[in-house]
Amino acid sequence: MADILHRIGIKSSSIDDVYQALTTRHGLAGWWTSNTQGEGNQVGNIIEFRFGAGGFDIKVSELTAPTYVGWVVVAGPDEWVGTTITWELKQEGEYVIVLFRHLNWKEPVEFMHHCSTKWAIFLMSLKSLIETGKGTPDPIDVKIDNWN
Amino acid sequence: MADILHRIGIKSSSIDDVYQALTTRHGLAGWWTSNTQGEGNQVGNIIEFRFGAGGFDIKVSELTAPTYVGWVVVAGPDEWVGTTITWELKQEGEYVIVLFRHLNWKEPVEFMHHCSTKWAIFLMSLKSLIETGKGTPDPIDVKIDNWN
Repeated sequence: MADILHRIGIKSSSIDDVYQALTTRHGLAGWWTSNTQGEGNQVGNIIEFRFGAGGFDIKVSELTAPTYVGWVVVAGPDEWVGTTITWELKQEGEYVIVLFRHLNWKEPVEFMHHCSTKWAIFLMSLKSLIETGKGTPDPIDVKIDNWN
Repeated sequence: MADILHRIGIKSSSIDDVYQALTTRHGLAGWWTSNTQGEGNQVGNIIEFRFGAGGFDIKVSELTAPTYVGWVVVAGPDEWVGTTITWELKQEGEYVIVLFRHLNWKEPVEFMHHCSTKWAIFLMSLKSLIETGKGTPDPIDVKIDNWN
């Protein structure tokens, strides 16, 4: 098993703003992909994320407002299905700290390397959305390699 | 043990340009930290990287020009000492693909989450250096959180 781990700090005194960006269609569409369907504010809900080259369906598995969001990937690329994604939020001074984890990849395949870097890029998009009101979700996301 | 994995693609037909950016003082200072001492073009060499808040000494452990660079961290934060960093390069069409690995962290501590995101940022700086001639090394690096 292999894991992707990241940490960002968002300059904000409102941990709830960050929680909303992870649990509402509007928020998610503002930093990850514009083509997001579904709301993430209820355990059991399915959220459909679509990108230029495919997408993922994610089931909300755990919510503790405003500090924790848990997802399970239920459809998408083989490497993603069955993995879990968790978001841990905490206020530290003037920052909301986000501890991100994409857990339980079966193998550390090359696609996982790509996704690790791309998650960092999307987390910076989330940071930008909260700090400036403007993120860079797909299709205006920052490209990192020949896989996009 | 826990690992940080990343993948970027640099628009370049010269894999050697990327190899030089990983094995010369001038190249490393162009994307990681301006305060770099030592050359990375000989196995056994020590390179000293210094940042605003500390730094690392890295020993070059393996070189296969222009496709592979291996480093061992010999001084720095406790969490870094003894870890290994590897760079695998390959040409894919119009991209030089970089597979980056920072291996054998003892524990997936919060600092590792930070370093994972920060590596992605510095890899994008390396990409920018080769593609545009200008990277964003420390101290002009992109800040990600309250740890910098």
